[in-house]
Amino acid sequence: MSSSSASNSSATASNPPPGRLASGYSELQESRLNVDLLVKLPQNPSAILVPGSLPKAALDERLKIGVVLSGGQAPGGHNVICGIFDYLQGRTNGSTLYGFKGGPAGIMKCKYIELTTDFIHPYRNQGGFDMICSGRDKIETPEQFQQAEETALKLDLDGLVVIGGDDSNTNACHLAEYFRSKNLKSRVIGCPKTIDGDLKCKEVPTSFGFDTACKIYAEMIGNVMIDARSTGKYYHFVRLMGRAASHITLECALQTHPNITIIGEEGWVCDYAREEFSIPMAISLMQVAAKKETLKNVTDYITDIICKRAELGYNYGVILIPEGLIDFIPEVQQLIAELNEILAHDVVDKSGVWKKKLRSQSRQLFELLPQAIQEQLLLERDPHGNVQVAKIETEKMLIQMMETELENRRNAGSYDKQFNGQSHFFGYEGRCGLPSNFDTNYCYALGYAAGALLHSGKTGLISSVGNLGAPVEEWTVGGTPLTSLMDVERRHGKFKPVIKKAMVELEGAPFKKFASVREEWAIKNRYFNPGLSWSVNEKTLKDAFDSYGDVTEVRILYDKETGRSRGFGFVYFSKEDEARTAKDAMDGKAFLGRPLRISFALDKVRGAPVVVPRLRNQ
Amino acid sequence: MSSSSASNSSATASNPPPGRLASGYSELQESRLNVDLLVKLPQNPSAILVPGSLPKAALDERLKIGVVLSGGQAPGGHNVICGIFDYLQGRTNGSTLYGFKGGPAGIMKCKYIELTTDFIHPYRNQGGFDMICSGRDKIETPEQFQQAEETALKLDLDGLVVIGGDDSNTNACHLAEYFRSKNLKSRVIGCPKTIDGDLKCKEVPTSFGFDTACKIYAEMIGNVMIDARSTGKYYHFVRLMGRAASHITLECALQTHPNITIIGEEGWVCDYAREEFSIPMAISLMQVAAKKETLKNVTDYITDIICKRAELGYNYGVILIPEGLIDFIPEVQQLIAELNEILAHDVVDKSGVWKKKLRSQSRQLFELLPQAIQEQLLLERDPHGNVQVAKIETEKMLIQMMETELENRRNAGSYDKQFNGQSHFFGYEGRCGLPSNFDTNYCYALGYAAGALLHSGKTGLISSVGNLGAPVEEWTVGGTPLTSLMDVERRHGKFKPVIKKAMVELEGAPFKKFASVREEWAIKNRYFNPGLSWSVNEKTLKDAFDSYGDVTEVRILYDKETGRSRGFGFVYFSKEDEARTAKDAMDGKAFLGRPLRISFALDKVRGAPVVVPRLRNQ
Repeated sequence: MSSSSASNSSATASNPPPGRLASGYSELQESRLNVDLLVKLPQNPSAILVPGSLPKAALDERLKIGVVLSGGQAPGGHNVICGIFDYLQGRTNGSTLYGFKGGPAGIMKCKYIELTTDFIHPYRNQGGFDMICSGRDKIETPEQFQQAEETALKLDLDGLVVIGGDDSNTNACHLAEYFRSKNLKSRVIGCPKTIDGDLKCKEVPTSFGFDTACKIYAEMIGNVMIDARSTGKYYHFVRLMGRAASHITLECALQTHPNITIIGEEGWVCDYAREEFSIPMAISLMQVAAKKETLKNVTDYITDIICKRAELGYNYGVILIPEGLIDFIPEVQQLIAELNEILAHDVVDKSGVWKKKLRSQSRQLFELLPQAIQEQLLLERDPHGNVQVAKIETEKMLIQMMETELENRRNAGSYDKQFNGQSHFFGYEGRCGLPSNFDTNYCYALGYAAGALLHSGKTGLISSVGNLGAPVEEWTVGGTPLTSLMDVERRHGKFKPVIKKAMVELEGAPFKKFASVREEWAIKNRYFNPGLSWSVNEKTLKDAFDSYGDVTEVRILYDKETGRSRGFGFVYFSKEDEARTAKDAMDGKAFLGRPLRISFALDKVRGAPVVVPRLRNQ
Repeated sequence: MSSSSASNSSATASNPPPGRLASGYSELQESRLNVDLLVKLPQNPSAILVPGSLPKAALDERLKIGVVLSGGQAPGGHNVICGIFDYLQGRTNGSTLYGFKGGPAGIMKCKYIELTTDFIHPYRNQGGFDMICSGRDKIETPEQFQQAEETALKLDLDGLVVIGGDDSNTNACHLAEYFRSKNLKSRVIGCPKTIDGDLKCKEVPTSFGFDTACKIYAEMIGNVMIDARSTGKYYHFVRLMGRAASHITLECALQTHPNITIIGEEGWVCDYAREEFSIPMAISLMQVAAKKETLKNVTDYITDIICKRAELGYNYGVILIPEGLIDFIPEVQQLIAELNEILAHDVVDKSGVWKKKLRSQSRQLFELLPQAIQEQLLLERDPHGNVQVAKIETEKMLIQMMETELENRRNAGSYDKQFNGQSHFFGYEGRCGLPSNFDTNYCYALGYAAGALLHSGKTGLISSVGNLGAPVEEWTVGGTPLTSLMDVERRHGKFKPVIKKAMVELEGAPFKKFASVREEWAIKNRYFNPGLSWSVNEKTLKDAFDSYGDVTEVRILYDKETGRSRGFGFVYFSKEDEARTAKDAMDGKAFLGRPLRISFALDKVRGAPVVVPRLRNQ
C-alpha cells in the first residue's frame, strides 16, 4: 500500500493537471478562472469566530493539511478547496495541501495528490468534483480508523478537511475524536456539502450546492410550465433530486409556483418532531401508517385538483414530486418488505395465488398499482434479491395511477377530459452545474474558514459562515462544534451519535409561505420562470458605473435567510453630480441583457446620493 | 359555429390578456418585454426581396390578416407574431391581425382573437406558444378546406400566416392553391418553425427554435459531462428531442464533445439520397435492412468504445442518442409489425410458443432485447392494439442491452469493470425556453417579412431571412415559393406533393467536422460545457464602450452558415485616442460576467482603429 501511494504521489506531482485542461474551456468557464472572489475575509485569523480560546496561529507555521470530497457532487466543492489553499498560501508559509483522491477511500488507501497553484487553477469557480473526485466509502470500522491513522502519520498531517453531507460530517466528528484519543496532532474540520439542503442548523444556515441546484431545476421547471400553458394538454410530473428531504422541491416550488407540489414531510413530520428527531426514521415511518398517509391519499389529492382544474377549463399543469416521496409512504415500504420475503422463497405464479401471502393492506395497495409498476416490483431486483425502490420512477408511477383513477372518474361521470402525463427527472444536470455566485463565494469562505480553524488548532468543528444576508464583505466565518449538530440514532441495531438530517420544517417560513399560496397556485396558474442569471455581482455593477465618477461602494441586497440576491442594490457615489450623470446615462440602458431601472434612494445614506439599479432576480 | 365564434371574439377582445400577466414576470422575462429588437428592416417594402413583380403595397391599405401556430412549440414563435403585427402597425393603416386559437382547428372552427398592442405585449421576446396556443390538426379533407374558406370569407381575410413545420408548410401551400382556385383574395404565407432543424433549404437556412433548443440541451449535457468526470463511474445516456432527423443531436455533439454520438442518418441516408428524397421513408427503411444497420451494430459500436475506455482507465462517459433512432433501425420496425400482428390474434403464452410465429430475424432480435423491454413490447399497446414505439425509451433500452453485452464480455474476460448507466431525456424543457438572441431576432424578421409579403400581394411563399452571417442590420428578408421545397411522396397510398424533411447530410460541413473528431472524443475526454449566454448583442456591446468616445459601429461576428456568434466582434471608434482609452479602460474588465480581452485589429478597417473584444461563446 505504501509503495503504491508513493508512486502515485510522485507520478501525479510531476504530471500536468489531468482532465479539464486537455478538454478545452468554454468562454464562460474560462471567464470564471480569473475572477477575483468577493470574499474579503479577515486578514487576522484571530478575528475569525472560534469557540473557546484564541488561536495561537503563527505566520511561519508550516502546516500539512489533507482535504477530501465525500459523497455526491454539489456545485462549489472546488472552491472550498481553493479557499483552504489560498488561506494556507496567504497565512502560512510553505504549507502543503494534499487532496485525497476518490473520497474517504483515498484516506484509507493513502491515495493523494499534492495540490499546487497550477494544479487547482483550472478548477476555480467551476462545477463538479473532478479536481480530486469523490467517493461514498465510509471510515467506520476499527480497521478503517486505523488506516486513516496510518495515513495521518505517514503524511505527518496537521489537519484534515472533510467536505461532505450529514454522514460524512458525522464521520469527521468521530475521526476527530479518534485522532484526539490517539494523541495525533491531526485536527479534523468538516464542511457542509449537499444539494439536498438537509444539512443545516442555526450556525450553518445552508449547505453549499443547494442554491445552484435549485436555480438550475427552477429554470427547467419554468420552461415546462410554459410548455404546459402553450400546449394546454400536458400534465408535467417533475421528480426532483434531493433524497429524503423535500427542501429542493419546496424551494423550486417557491421559485416557480407550480399547480401541485408534494412535500414528503407533511405526512409524518409530526411524529418525527415529537420524538425530537432522535428516533430512527424506520420507526418514525411505521408510526405514520396509523396517520393514513397512503399512496391513495397522495393520488386522490392530485386527482381532485386535476378534476377541479378540468372544470375550470385547464387541462394541463405542472406537478413537483420529491425524489424521496416513496420513502415517506409506510405502506409502500411494508409492501416491498413483504414482496422481498415472498420473492425470496416462492414462485410468482401467473394465476396470482402468491398474492394471498400478502397482508390484506399490502395486497390492496398492490392491486391499486398500475400493471407496469406491478411488473417492475416483481421483476427488478438487486443482487441480493431485493426490489430496487430507488429505481421505481415515482413520477411515472403517479402518472399511471392518475390514468387509472381518472378513468374511474370518467366512468363515474365526474371527469371528461383527456389526461396526458409527461414525466421528468431533474437530477444529475443540476448537481454539476457552474456554481451560482452565492455558492462560489460561500464555498470559498467555507474553505478559508476551515484553513483558519486548522491553523488555530481547532478540531471537531464544522466550518460556518454567517451573516449571509449582508454583503459578502460582512460575512462572518468561524466554526461550530460538530457534536452540537448530533443526536443519538439507532443504526444497525446500535445507538450511535449522528448528525440528524434537517427535514423541511412545517413551522418554518418557507413551508408556511408555500402553504399559504398553494391553493391559489393549484387552481389558478401563477407560473413563474425565474430564468438563469449568474453574472450580476458587486464587481460587474461597479464596473458598469465606474466611468461616471468615484464609486465608493456597491451593495446588492441579499435575502437575510438564504443569502440570495433580492434583485436590487445601491451604488454609492462620492459626488452628487456624478451620481446624477450616472443615472442619466445608465437609466434604461441594457446591463447584462436587461435595462437598468435607476432612481435616487429616498434616504441620503452616508451623506452621498445613491443610485439604485434594479438587478435581475438572482 | 358562427355565434360561438362571434361571442368568442367579442369576449376576448374586451377581456384583459389571459395567463401570462396574471402569473407575474421574473426579472429576466420582464426585462425582455421592452427590449428594442435589433432588426432594422427595410423601411420600404419594395426593397424586400420578393420573387416576381414589385409589390403594389400602399400605406393606406387596410389589411385583415390571420395568423396560426401549428404543431409543437419552438422558442421565438411569439416574435413571429410580433413581427407581423409591427409590420402591419408601421406599414399599413388600421390593419387588423387575428390570431387563430389552438392551431389549424382555430381556422376551421373560426375561433380567433383580435391581437392588439396590449394583448401581444406580454409575449414579446418570451418563450412558448401560449399567446394563441397551437394544435396538431391538419386542414386536409375537402370539408376542412371548405371550413377554412368559410372563415376566410367571414373575416374578410386578406392573408394568412401559417407558422409551422414541414407538414404545416405543406398545408399552407395547398391552402394557398385552394384559395387561389376559389378566387379568394386571401393570400397564404408560411414560416419555418421547428426545433428539430429539419425544415430548411438554400433560401431558408434554418428553422426557428433550433438554436435555442440546442443551447439549452448543450448546457445540460455539459453539466452531466462534469458529473461523469467527477464520479468516474457513470455512463450518461442522453436521448435528445428532434424526431426523425438527428440535427439536434449532431449540433449538441459539436457544442459539447461527448464520447459517443449516434447519428441516425448514417445508417440509411445512402439509400435515401439515391432516391433523391422522393421515396417514402417506409420503403427507404426497408431497403436498409439489407445494409445491416441493426440494433446489434449500434450496441456493438457503443460496447466496443466502453471496453476500450475501460482499458484506458475511463469507466465513465456521455452518449447522445437521437429521439428518432429506433425509427432508423428497420429490423426493429419489422419486429414491431410482426408483434402487432401476433398480439392482435394470439395469446402470448408464458412458455413462449407464440415466438415461433416471429420470423427468424425478428425472433433473434427479440431474444437479444432485455427482458424489461420484451415485457414493454408485449404489454404497452395503444387503443388500436399497436405497440407504442414512441414510448420505448431508447436510452434505457440501450443501457439494458449494454448491461447484457458487457456481462457477456466479462464472462469472456474482455471487460472487468462495473457499468452504471444513467438515462436522460432532454426534450420539453428545451422547446419552451426563452428564445436566444438569434431566435428572437430571426423570428421577428420572419414575421416582419411575412407581413410585407402579404402586403405586396404574394401567396404560396415561405418567409425567408438570408445573409444570417452578417450583422442583423444586414440580414435580407424575402419569400421563397413553397413549391420549390416540395417533392412527391407517397402517403396513405397516394402520391402527394409534400415538403421533404431535411435530414442530416453526411456530406455537409457539420457532419464531416463531427466525423473527423469523433474517434478522438470517444477515447479521450474533450468535454466542453458551453454555458448559457443570452445577453451579448451589438447593443450591449455598444453601451459598454459608448462612454469612451464616439462609437461609429459595432459588429459581432456570426457564423456564416448558422448565424451564431463566433465569440468576438469589432467596436469601431471614430478617433484613435478614444479607442486607445477604451482599450486601456475595458481590457480585462468584466463584461456580462466575464473579462473582455481587447486588442487592436491588425487591419485598420475603414481608416479607424478597431477594438476587438472577445465575447463569450454564444
